[in-house]
Amino acid sequence: MPLKKGKSKVALVPTMGALHKGHLSLIKIAQQEAEIVVCSIFVNPTQFTDPKDLEKYPRPLEHDIKMLNDAGCNIVFMPTVKEMYPLFPKPEKWHIDLGPAEFLLEGEFRKGHYQGVTQIVKKLFDAVNPDIAFFGQKDFQQVLMIKNMVNVFDLPLEIISCPIIREEDGLAMSSRNIHLSATDRKNALVLNKALTYTKDHFNKLSISELLSHAKAMINNTPGVELDYFTIADESTLLPITNKDVKNSVALVAAKVGDTRLIDNMLL
Amino acid sequence: MPLKKGKSKVALVPTMGALHKGHLSLIKIAQQEAEIVVCSIFVNPTQFTDPKDLEKYPRPLEHDIKMLNDAGCNIVFMPTVKEMYPLFPKPEKWHIDLGPAEFLLEGEFRKGHYQGVTQIVKKLFDAVNPDIAFFGQKDFQQVLMIKNMVNVFDLPLEIISCPIIREEDGLAMSSRNIHLSATDRKNALVLNKALTYTKDHFNKLSISELLSHAKAMINNTPGVELDYFTIADESTLLPITNKDVKNSVALVAAKVGDTRLIDNMLL
Repeated sequence: MPLKKGKSKVALVPTMGALHKGHLSLIKIAQQEAEIVVCSIFVNPTQFTDPKDLEKYPRPLEHDIKMLNDAGCNIVFMPTVKEMYPLFPKPEKWHIDLGPAEFLLEGEFRKGHYQGVTQIVKKLFDAVNPDIAFFGQKDFQQVLMIKNMVNVFDLPLEIISCPIIREEDGLAMSSRNIHLSATDRKNALVLNKALTYTKDHFNKLSISELLSHAKAMINNTPGVELDYFTIADESTLLPITNKDVKNSVALVAAKVGDTRLIDNMLL
Repeated sequence: MPLKKGKSKVALVPTMGALHKGHLSLIKIAQQEAEIVVCSIFVNPTQFTDPKDLEKYPRPLEHDIKMLNDAGCNIVFMPTVKEMYPLFPKPEKWHIDLGPAEFLLEGEFRKGHYQGVTQIVKKLFDAVNPDIAFFGQKDFQQVLMIKNMVNVFDLPLEIISCPIIREEDGLAMSSRNIHLSATDRKNALVLNKALTYTKDHFNKLSISELLSHAKAMINNTPGVELDYFTIADESTLLPITNKDVKNSVALVAAKVGDTRLIDNMLL
Protein backbone atom coordinates (compact mmCIF):
# COMPACT_ATOMS: atom_id res chain seq x y z
CA MET A 1 0.00 0.00 0.00
CA PRO A 2 2.35 2.78 -1.16
CA LEU A 3 0.14 5.64 0.03
CA LYS A 4 2.90 8.21 0.12
CA LYS A 5 3.57 8.83 -3.57
CA GLY A 6 5.93 11.76 -3.86
CA LYS A 7 5.50 13.95 -0.86
CA SER A 8 1.81 13.55 -0.08
CA LYS A 9 1.12 13.86 3.60
CA VAL A 10 -1.13 11.18 5.05
CA ALA A 11 -3.54 11.98 7.88
CA LEU A 12 -5.36 9.44 10.01
CA VAL A 13 -8.60 10.05 11.87
CA PRO A 14 -9.14 6.98 14.07
CA THR A 15 -12.77 6.45 15.03
CA MET A 16 -15.07 3.77 16.38
CA GLY A 17 -17.70 4.74 13.80
CA ALA A 18 -21.19 6.00 14.67
CA LEU A 19 -19.94 9.23 13.17
CA HIS A 20 -21.33 12.64 14.06
CA LYS A 21 -20.39 16.25 13.38
CA GLY A 22 -17.54 15.96 15.87
CA HIS A 23 -15.89 13.33 13.68
CA LEU A 24 -16.62 15.34 10.54
CA SER A 25 -14.83 18.32 12.05
CA LEU A 26 -11.76 16.09 12.49
CA ILE A 27 -11.96 15.06 8.82
CA LYS A 28 -12.22 18.70 7.76
CA ILE A 29 -9.25 19.79 9.86
CA ALA A 30 -7.28 16.79 8.56
CA GLN A 31 -8.05 17.80 4.97
CA GLN A 32 -6.48 21.19 5.60
CA GLU A 33 -3.28 19.55 6.84
CA ALA A 34 -2.79 16.54 4.56
CA GLU A 35 -3.26 15.46 0.95
CA ILE A 36 -4.62 12.03 1.85
CA VAL A 37 -7.09 11.57 4.69
CA VAL A 38 -7.68 8.07 6.04
CA CYS A 39 -10.54 7.46 8.47
CA SER A 40 -10.41 4.20 10.39
CA ILE A 41 -13.58 2.67 11.80
CA PHE A 42 -12.92 0.01 14.40
CA VAL A 43 -14.95 -0.66 17.52
CA ASN A 44 -12.01 -1.73 19.64
CA PRO A 45 -13.11 -4.51 21.99
CA THR A 46 -10.07 -4.25 24.29
CA GLN A 47 -10.86 -0.73 25.49
CA PHE A 48 -14.31 -1.63 26.79
CA THR A 49 -14.50 -2.69 30.41
CA ASP A 50 -18.24 -3.33 30.29
CA PRO A 51 -19.25 -6.03 27.76
CA LYS A 52 -22.75 -4.53 27.61
CA ASP A 53 -21.28 -1.18 26.60
CA LEU A 54 -19.36 -2.91 23.79
CA GLU A 55 -22.41 -4.82 22.68
CA LYS A 56 -24.69 -1.82 22.48
CA TYR A 57 -22.10 0.50 20.93
CA PRO A 58 -23.81 1.78 17.76
CA ARG A 59 -22.48 0.51 14.40
CA PRO A 60 -24.35 2.32 11.60
CA LEU A 61 -21.83 1.32 8.95
CA GLU A 62 -23.64 2.39 5.77
CA HIS A 63 -24.46 5.75 7.30
CA ASP A 64 -20.80 6.18 8.32
CA ILE A 65 -19.45 5.35 4.89
CA LYS A 66 -21.91 7.72 3.21
CA MET A 67 -20.90 10.49 5.62
CA LEU A 68 -17.20 9.96 4.93
CA ASN A 69 -17.84 9.81 1.19
CA ASP A 70 -19.82 13.06 1.30
CA ALA A 71 -17.05 14.64 3.37
CA GLY A 72 -14.47 13.74 0.72
CA CYS A 73 -12.50 11.40 2.97
CA ASN A 74 -10.08 9.51 0.71
CA ILE A 75 -9.82 6.13 2.40
CA VAL A 76 -11.95 4.27 4.93
CA PHE A 77 -9.97 1.62 6.83
CA MET A 78 -12.22 -0.95 8.49
CA PRO A 79 -10.13 -3.85 9.79
CA THR A 80 -11.72 -6.87 11.43
CA VAL A 81 -11.09 -7.81 15.04
CA LYS A 82 -9.04 -10.81 13.87
CA GLU A 83 -6.89 -8.59 11.69
CA MET A 84 -6.11 -6.26 14.57
CA TYR A 85 -5.96 -8.98 17.26
CA PRO A 86 -4.97 -12.30 15.64
CA LEU A 87 -5.04 -14.03 19.03
CA PHE A 88 -8.38 -12.53 20.14
CA PRO A 89 -10.04 -13.12 22.61
CA LYS A 90 -6.73 -13.83 24.34
CA PRO A 91 -5.59 -10.59 25.96
CA GLU A 92 -2.64 -8.73 24.49
CA LYS A 93 0.57 -9.65 26.28
CA TRP A 94 2.48 -6.43 25.80
CA HIS A 95 2.24 -3.32 27.85
CA ILE A 96 3.03 0.37 27.45
CA ASP A 97 4.19 2.54 30.35
CA LEU A 98 1.84 5.52 29.94
CA GLY A 99 2.78 7.25 33.17
CA PRO A 100 0.73 7.80 36.33
CA ALA A 101 -2.13 9.63 34.55
CA GLU A 102 -3.15 6.27 33.05
CA PHE A 103 -4.77 5.36 36.35
CA LEU A 104 -6.60 8.62 37.06
CA LEU A 105 -10.14 9.66 36.06
CA GLU A 106 -11.27 7.43 33.17
CA GLY A 107 -8.42 5.07 34.00
CA GLU A 108 -9.80 4.65 37.51
CA PHE A 109 -13.36 3.99 36.34
CA ARG A 110 -12.38 1.85 33.35
CA LYS A 111 -9.57 -0.54 34.33
CA GLY A 112 -7.18 -1.25 31.47
CA HIS A 113 -8.99 1.21 29.22
CA TYR A 114 -5.91 3.17 28.15
CA GLN A 115 -3.81 0.09 27.48
CA GLY A 116 -6.59 -0.97 25.09
CA VAL A 117 -6.80 2.50 23.54
CA THR A 118 -3.09 3.05 23.05
CA GLN A 119 -2.43 -0.51 21.85
CA ILE A 120 -5.07 -0.25 19.12
CA VAL A 121 -3.90 3.22 18.11
CA LYS A 122 -0.32 1.87 17.88
CA LYS A 123 -1.61 -0.94 15.66
CA LEU A 124 -3.58 1.52 13.48
CA PHE A 125 -0.50 3.75 13.19
CA ASP A 126 1.60 0.73 12.19
CA ALA A 127 -0.97 -0.25 9.56
CA VAL A 128 -1.63 3.21 8.06
CA ASN A 129 1.72 4.90 8.75
CA PRO A 130 0.29 8.45 8.90
CA ASP A 131 2.29 11.68 9.18
CA ILE A 132 -0.35 13.25 11.38
CA ALA A 133 -3.35 11.98 13.35
CA PHE A 134 -6.40 13.82 14.65
CA PHE A 135 -8.34 13.18 17.85
CA GLY A 136 -11.20 14.98 19.53
CA GLN A 137 -10.48 16.96 22.68
CA LYS A 138 -13.68 15.52 24.14
CA ASP A 139 -11.60 12.49 25.11
CA PHE A 140 -9.06 14.74 26.78
CA GLN A 141 -7.24 12.07 28.75
CA GLN A 142 -7.16 9.80 25.70
CA VAL A 143 -5.25 12.41 23.69
CA LEU A 144 -2.71 12.71 26.52
CA MET A 145 -2.31 8.92 26.73
CA ILE A 146 -1.86 8.66 22.95
CA LYS A 147 0.78 11.39 23.01
CA ASN A 148 2.57 9.44 25.77
CA MET A 149 2.39 6.26 23.67
CA VAL A 150 3.85 8.14 20.69
CA ASN A 151 6.71 9.29 22.94
CA VAL A 152 7.32 5.77 24.26
CA PHE A 153 7.86 4.47 20.71
CA ASP A 154 9.21 7.79 19.39
CA LEU A 155 6.83 7.50 16.43
CA PRO A 156 7.54 9.96 13.62
CA LEU A 157 4.10 11.55 13.55
CA GLU A 158 2.16 14.45 14.98
CA ILE A 159 -0.90 14.19 17.22
CA ILE A 160 -3.45 17.00 16.91
CA SER A 161 -6.21 17.57 19.44
CA CYS A 162 -9.28 19.20 17.87
CA PRO A 163 -11.96 21.29 19.64
CA ILE A 164 -15.06 19.71 21.11
CA ILE A 165 -18.11 20.05 18.85
CA ARG A 166 -21.35 20.68 20.74
CA GLU A 167 -25.05 20.56 19.97
CA GLU A 168 -26.72 23.97 19.89
CA ASP A 169 -27.75 23.59 23.51
CA GLY A 170 -24.19 22.78 24.58
CA LEU A 171 -24.19 18.99 24.88
CA ALA A 172 -20.85 17.59 23.67
CA MET A 173 -21.37 15.42 20.60
CA SER A 174 -20.86 11.72 21.33
CA SER A 175 -21.80 8.47 19.66
CA ARG A 176 -23.34 7.49 22.98
CA ASN A 177 -25.85 10.38 22.98
CA ILE A 178 -28.11 8.21 20.82
CA HIS A 179 -28.85 6.14 23.94
CA LEU A 180 -30.23 9.12 25.89
CA SER A 181 -33.98 9.29 26.44
CA ALA A 182 -35.67 12.70 25.99
CA THR A 183 -35.42 13.26 29.75
CA ASP A 184 -31.79 12.06 29.89
CA ARG A 185 -31.01 14.35 26.98
CA LYS A 186 -32.30 17.35 28.92
CA ASN A 187 -30.59 16.31 32.18
CA ALA A 188 -27.28 15.76 30.38
CA LEU A 189 -27.02 19.48 29.71
CA VAL A 190 -25.89 19.97 33.29
CA LEU A 191 -22.43 18.63 32.40
CA ASN A 192 -21.73 21.45 29.98
CA LYS A 193 -23.44 23.92 32.35
CA ALA A 194 -21.20 22.90 35.27
CA LEU A 195 -18.09 23.16 33.09
CA THR A 196 -19.16 26.54 31.74
CA TYR A 197 -19.89 27.76 35.27
CA THR A 198 -16.40 26.67 36.31
CA LYS A 199 -14.78 28.43 33.37
CA ASP A 200 -16.84 31.62 33.85
CA HIS A 201 -16.09 31.84 37.57
CA PHE A 202 -12.51 30.56 37.45
CA ASN A 203 -10.99 33.96 38.32
CA LYS A 204 -13.59 34.86 40.92
CA LEU A 205 -13.90 31.77 43.11
CA SER A 206 -11.46 29.43 44.84
CA ILE A 207 -10.86 25.93 43.50
CA SER A 208 -12.85 24.37 46.33
CA GLU A 209 -15.73 26.79 45.79
CA LEU A 210 -15.72 26.04 42.06
CA LEU A 211 -15.73 22.30 42.70
CA SER A 212 -18.50 22.39 45.29
CA HIS A 213 -20.73 24.56 43.08
CA ALA A 214 -20.17 22.43 40.00
CA LYS A 215 -20.68 19.17 41.85
CA ALA A 216 -23.82 20.50 43.50
CA MET A 217 -25.26 21.48 40.11
CA ILE A 218 -24.73 17.94 38.85
CA ASN A 219 -25.79 16.16 42.03
CA ASN A 220 -29.01 18.23 42.14
CA THR A 221 -29.98 17.07 38.65
CA PRO A 222 -32.30 14.05 38.74
CA GLY A 223 -31.12 10.95 36.86
CA VAL A 224 -27.50 12.10 36.80
CA GLU A 225 -24.94 10.18 38.82
CA LEU A 226 -21.54 11.87 39.06
CA ASP A 227 -18.39 9.79 38.66
CA TYR A 228 -15.98 12.71 38.97
CA PHE A 229 -15.69 16.43 38.50
CA THR A 230 -12.14 17.70 38.75
CA ILE A 231 -10.05 20.72 37.97
CA ALA A 232 -6.69 19.37 36.92
CA ASP A 233 -3.31 20.21 35.48
CA GLU A 234 -3.56 19.64 31.70
CA SER A 235 -0.34 17.67 31.49
CA THR A 236 -0.52 15.49 34.61
CA LEU A 237 -4.32 15.38 35.18
CA LEU A 238 -3.58 15.75 38.88
CA PRO A 239 -6.10 17.97 40.69
CA ILE A 240 -4.85 21.51 41.21
CA THR A 241 -5.21 23.20 44.58
CA ASN A 242 -4.51 26.76 43.50
CA LYS A 243 -4.71 28.74 40.29
CA ASP A 244 -0.96 29.26 39.76
CA VAL A 245 -0.92 26.23 37.46
CA LYS A 246 -0.49 27.52 33.92
CA ASN A 247 -2.81 25.22 31.97
CA SER A 248 -5.74 23.69 33.72
CA VAL A 249 -8.82 21.85 32.57
CA ALA A 250 -12.12 20.88 34.17
CA LEU A 251 -13.12 17.29 33.49
CA VAL A 252 -16.39 15.56 34.25
CA ALA A 253 -17.84 12.06 33.93
CA ALA A 254 -21.35 11.07 34.91
CA LYS A 255 -23.99 8.49 34.25
CA VAL A 256 -27.08 10.07 32.72
CA GLY A 257 -29.80 7.48 32.90
CA ASP A 258 -27.97 4.33 31.73
CA THR A 259 -25.46 6.20 29.61
CA ARG A 260 -22.05 7.27 30.84
CA LEU A 261 -20.94 10.60 29.37
CA ILE A 262 -17.71 12.59 29.66
CA ASP A 263 -16.94 16.21 28.89
CA ASN A 264 -14.26 18.79 29.63
CA MET A 265 -13.35 22.42 29.20
CA LEU A 266 -10.02 24.27 29.14
CA LEU A 267 -9.93 26.97 31.80
CA MET B 1 13.59 -1.27 0.89
CA PRO B 2 11.44 -3.67 -1.20
CA LEU B 3 13.49 -6.75 -0.40
CA LYS B 4 10.80 -9.24 -1.31
CA LYS B 5 10.72 -8.98 -5.09
CA GLY B 6 8.50 -11.71 -6.43
CA LYS B 7 8.50 -14.54 -3.99
CA SER B 8 12.01 -14.41 -2.57
CA LYS B 9 12.16 -15.56 1.00
CA VAL B 10 14.11 -13.32 3.36
CA ALA B 11 16.07 -14.78 6.27
CA LEU B 12 17.49 -12.82 9.17
CA VAL B 13 20.42 -13.89 11.32
CA PRO B 14 20.56 -11.43 14.22
CA THR B 15 23.99 -11.20 15.84
CA MET B 16 26.02 -8.94 18.10
CA GLY B 17 29.02 -9.34 15.80
CA ALA B 18 32.37 -10.85 16.87
CA LEU B 19 31.41 -13.61 14.51
CA HIS B 20 32.70 -17.16 14.78
CA LYS B 21 31.95 -20.51 13.18
CA GLY B 22 28.72 -20.74 15.20
CA HIS B 23 27.39 -17.65 13.44
CA LEU B 24 28.64 -18.90 10.07
CA SER B 25 26.69 -22.11 10.55
CA LEU B 26 23.55 -19.98 11.01
CA ILE B 27 24.28 -18.14 7.76
CA LYS B 28 24.78 -21.45 5.95
CA ILE B 29 21.54 -22.92 7.25
CA ALA B 30 19.74 -19.68 6.39
CA GLN B 31 21.07 -19.85 2.83
CA GLN B 32 19.48 -23.27 2.43
CA GLU B 33 16.10 -21.90 3.49
CA ALA B 34 15.92 -18.45 1.92
CA GLU B 35 16.92 -16.58 -1.24
CA ILE B 36 18.05 -13.46 0.62
CA VAL B 37 20.06 -13.72 3.83
CA VAL B 38 20.38 -10.63 6.03
CA CYS B 39 22.80 -10.63 8.95
CA SER B 40 22.34 -7.90 11.52
CA ILE B 41 25.22 -6.78 13.72
CA PHE B 42 24.13 -4.79 16.73
CA VAL B 43 25.64 -4.89 20.20
CA ASN B 44 22.40 -4.28 22.03
CA PRO B 45 23.08 -2.14 25.10
CA THR B 46 19.72 -2.86 26.77
CA GLN B 47 20.38 -6.57 27.24
CA PHE B 48 23.58 -6.06 29.24
CA THR B 49 23.17 -5.87 32.98
CA ASP B 50 26.88 -5.28 33.59
CA PRO B 51 28.21 -2.08 31.94
CA LYS B 52 31.74 -3.57 31.97
CA ASP B 53 30.47 -6.59 30.03
CA LEU B 54 28.96 -4.21 27.42
CA GLU B 55 32.13 -2.15 27.26
CA LYS B 56 34.47 -5.09 26.74
CA TYR B 57 32.19 -6.93 24.30
CA PRO B 58 34.40 -7.48 21.23
CA ARG B 59 33.58 -5.43 18.09
CA PRO B 60 35.89 -6.59 15.27
CA LEU B 61 33.78 -4.97 12.56
CA GLU B 62 36.09 -5.32 9.54
CA HIS B 63 36.71 -8.96 10.35
CA ASP B 64 32.96 -9.55 10.68
CA ILE B 65 32.13 -7.92 7.35
CA LYS B 66 34.86 -9.89 5.58
CA MET B 67 33.55 -13.13 7.11
CA LEU B 68 29.99 -12.37 5.99
CA ASN B 69 31.18 -11.39 2.53
CA ASP B 70 33.18 -14.61 2.18
CA ALA B 71 30.15 -16.58 3.38
CA GLY B 72 27.99 -15.05 0.63
CA CYS B 73 25.66 -13.25 3.05
CA ASN B 74 23.57 -10.84 0.94
CA ILE B 75 23.02 -7.94 3.30
CA VAL B 76 24.69 -6.75 6.49
CA PHE B 77 22.40 -4.56 8.62
CA MET B 78 24.30 -2.48 11.16
CA PRO B 79 22.01 0.08 12.75
CA THR B 80 23.28 2.62 15.26
CA VAL B 81 22.09 2.72 18.87
CA LYS B 82 20.18 5.94 18.12
CA GLU B 83 18.43 4.30 15.18
CA MET B 84 17.27 1.40 17.29
CA TYR B 85 16.65 3.43 20.47
CA PRO B 86 15.86 7.04 19.52
CA LEU B 87 15.38 7.95 23.19
CA PHE B 88 18.55 6.19 24.43
CA PRO B 89 19.79 6.17 27.19
CA LYS B 90 16.24 6.52 28.51
CA PRO B 91 14.92 3.01 29.16
CA GLU B 92 12.27 1.58 26.87
CA LYS B 93 8.80 2.12 28.30
CA TRP B 94 7.06 -0.85 26.80
CA HIS B 95 7.05 -4.36 28.10
CA ILE B 96 6.38 -7.85 26.74
CA ASP B 97 4.83 -10.59 28.86
CA LEU B 98 7.27 -13.43 28.14
CA GLY B 99 5.85 -15.84 30.69
CA PRO B 100 7.40 -17.13 33.92
CA ALA B 101 10.52 -18.56 32.24
CA GLU B 102 11.71 -14.98 31.72
CA PHE B 103 12.79 -14.86 35.35
CA LEU B 104 14.55 -18.23 35.57
CA LEU B 105 18.21 -19.09 34.92
CA GLU B 106 19.74 -16.27 32.83
CA GLY B 107 16.74 -14.12 33.73
CA GLU B 108 17.56 -14.55 37.39
CA PHE B 109 21.24 -13.71 36.98
CA ARG B 110 20.70 -10.91 34.44
CA LYS B 111 17.73 -8.77 35.51
CA GLY B 112 15.80 -7.36 32.55
CA HIS B 113 17.99 -9.29 30.09
CA TYR B 114 15.14 -10.88 28.14
CA GLN B 115 13.12 -7.69 27.88
CA GLY B 116 16.21 -6.17 26.25
CA VAL B 117 16.73 -9.20 24.00
CA THR B 118 13.14 -9.55 22.83
CA GLN B 119 12.60 -5.80 22.39
CA ILE B 120 15.65 -5.47 20.12
CA VAL B 121 14.71 -8.61 18.17
CA LYS B 122 11.18 -7.17 17.71
CA LYS B 123 12.74 -3.94 16.41
CA LEU B 124 15.06 -5.87 14.06
CA PHE B 125 12.11 -7.93 12.79
CA ASP B 126 10.13 -4.72 12.19
CA ALA B 127 13.05 -3.21 10.28
CA VAL B 128 14.00 -6.24 8.16
CA ASN B 129 10.62 -8.00 7.91
CA PRO B 130 12.06 -11.50 7.46
CA ASP B 131 10.10 -14.67 6.69
CA ILE B 132 12.40 -16.74 8.85
CA ALA B 133 15.04 -16.02 11.47
CA PHE B 134 17.89 -18.16 12.80
CA PHE B 135 19.30 -18.31 16.31
CA GLY B 136 21.91 -20.52 17.96
CA GLN B 137 20.73 -23.14 20.42
CA LYS B 138 23.64 -22.12 22.65
CA ASP B 139 21.39 -19.36 23.95
CA PHE B 140 18.66 -21.89 24.65
CA GLN B 141 16.51 -19.71 26.88
CA GLN B 142 16.87 -16.80 24.46
CA VAL B 143 15.34 -18.84 21.64
CA LEU B 144 12.41 -19.73 23.89
CA MET B 145 11.89 -16.09 24.90
CA ILE B 146 12.04 -14.95 21.27
CA LYS B 147 9.47 -17.58 20.31
CA ASN B 148 7.25 -16.29 23.12
CA MET B 149 7.67 -12.71 21.85
CA VAL B 150 6.73 -13.83 18.33
CA ASN B 151 3.58 -15.42 19.79
CA VAL B 152 2.72 -12.28 21.78
CA PHE B 153 2.70 -10.20 18.58
CA ASP B 154 1.64 -13.10 16.34
CA LEU B 155 4.44 -12.18 13.93
CA PRO B 156 4.22 -13.91 10.54
CA LEU B 157 7.65 -15.52 10.63
CA GLU B 158 9.40 -18.69 11.65
CA ILE B 159 12.07 -19.01 14.34
CA ILE B 160 14.69 -21.71 13.79
CA SER B 161 17.03 -22.91 16.51
CA CYS B 162 20.34 -24.19 15.10
CA PRO B 163 22.74 -26.68 16.73
CA ILE B 164 25.56 -25.53 18.98
CA ILE B 165 28.91 -25.41 17.21
CA ARG B 166 31.83 -26.50 19.36
CA GLU B 167 35.59 -26.27 19.23
CA GLU B 168 37.33 -29.62 18.62
CA ASP B 169 37.78 -30.10 22.36
CA GLY B 170 34.07 -29.50 23.02
CA LEU B 171 33.97 -25.86 24.19
CA ALA B 172 30.85 -24.19 22.83
CA MET B 173 31.77 -21.37 20.46
CA SER B 174 31.10 -17.93 21.93
CA SER B 175 32.23 -14.39 21.21
CA ARG B 176 33.22 -14.22 24.85
CA ASN B 177 35.75 -17.09 24.57
CA ILE B 178 38.28 -14.52 23.36
CA HIS B 179 38.49 -13.22 26.93
CA LEU B 180 39.60 -16.60 28.34
CA SER B 181 43.23 -16.97 29.42
CA ALA B 182 45.01 -20.20 28.46
CA THR B 183 44.20 -21.61 31.92
CA ASP B 184 40.58 -20.42 31.77
CA ARG B 185 40.29 -21.96 28.33
CA LYS B 186 41.33 -25.35 29.72
CA ASN B 187 39.13 -25.04 32.81
CA ALA B 188 36.13 -24.03 30.70
CA LEU B 189 36.03 -27.50 29.15
CA VAL B 190 34.37 -28.77 32.33
CA LEU B 191 31.06 -27.21 31.24
CA ASN B 192 30.79 -29.40 28.16
CA LYS B 193 32.14 -32.36 30.13
CA ALA B 194 29.48 -32.00 32.82
CA LEU B 195 26.75 -31.70 30.20
CA THR B 196 28.06 -34.70 28.28
CA TYR B 197 28.27 -36.72 31.49
CA THR B 198 24.63 -35.84 32.21
CA LYS B 199 23.51 -36.85 28.74
CA ASP B 200 25.53 -40.08 28.77
CA HIS B 201 24.22 -41.13 32.20
CA PHE B 202 20.68 -39.82 31.81
CA ASN B 203 19.10 -43.28 31.64
CA LYS B 204 21.29 -44.80 34.34
CA LEU B 205 21.18 -42.30 37.21
CA SER B 206 18.48 -40.36 39.03
CA ILE B 207 18.03 -36.64 38.43
CA SER B 208 19.53 -35.80 41.81
CA GLU B 209 22.52 -38.09 41.20
CA LEU B 210 23.06 -36.51 37.80
CA LEU B 211 22.91 -33.02 39.27
CA SER B 212 25.25 -33.72 42.16
CA HIS B 213 27.83 -35.40 39.89
CA ALA B 214 27.72 -32.61 37.32
CA LYS B 215 27.88 -29.86 39.92
CA ALA B 216 30.76 -31.59 41.71
CA MET B 217 32.71 -31.80 38.43
CA ILE B 218 32.33 -28.05 37.96
CA ASN B 219 32.86 -27.07 41.59
CA ASN B 220 36.04 -29.14 41.71
CA THR B 221 37.53 -27.26 38.78
CA PRO B 222 39.75 -24.36 39.90
CA GLY B 223 38.83 -20.90 38.62
CA VAL B 224 35.29 -21.96 37.74
CA GLU B 225 32.40 -20.51 39.73
CA LEU B 226 29.05 -22.15 39.06
CA ASP B 227 25.95 -19.96 38.65
CA TYR B 228 23.57 -22.82 37.91
CA PHE B 229 23.42 -26.34 36.55
CA THR B 230 19.91 -27.57 35.96
CA ILE B 231 17.99 -30.30 34.20
CA ALA B 232 14.82 -28.68 32.97
CA ASP B 233 11.72 -29.09 30.87
CA GLU B 234 12.54 -27.69 27.42
CA SER B 235 9.37 -25.65 27.15
CA THR B 236 9.04 -24.23 30.69
CA LEU B 237 12.68 -24.34 31.85
CA LEU B 238 11.40 -25.53 35.21
CA PRO B 239 13.64 -28.16 36.83
CA ILE B 240 12.38 -31.70 36.32
CA THR B 241 12.23 -34.11 39.22
CA ASN B 242 11.76 -37.32 37.27
CA LYS B 243 12.51 -38.53 33.77
CA ASP B 244 8.90 -38.82 32.54
CA VAL B 245 9.16 -35.36 31.02
CA LYS B 246 9.32 -35.79 27.27
CA ASN B 247 11.86 -33.16 26.27
CA SER B 248 14.47 -32.13 28.76
CA VAL B 249 17.64 -30.13 28.56
CA ALA B 250 20.63 -29.62 30.81
CA LEU B 251 21.68 -25.99 31.15
CA VAL B 252 24.75 -24.51 32.78
CA ALA B 253 26.19 -21.09 33.49
CA ALA B 254 29.49 -20.40 35.22
CA LYS B 255 32.14 -17.79 35.57
CA VAL B 256 35.44 -19.03 34.22
CA GLY B 257 38.08 -16.57 35.40
CA ASP B 258 36.39 -13.24 34.73
CA THR B 259 34.28 -14.53 31.87
CA ARG B 260 30.74 -15.79 32.27
CA LEU B 261 29.91 -18.67 29.93
CA ILE B 262 26.73 -20.62 29.25
CA ASP B 263 26.15 -23.95 27.56
CA ASN B 264 23.42 -26.57 27.28
CA MET B 265 22.64 -30.00 25.88
CA LEU B 266 19.40 -31.70 24.89
CA LEU B 267 18.93 -34.95 26.82
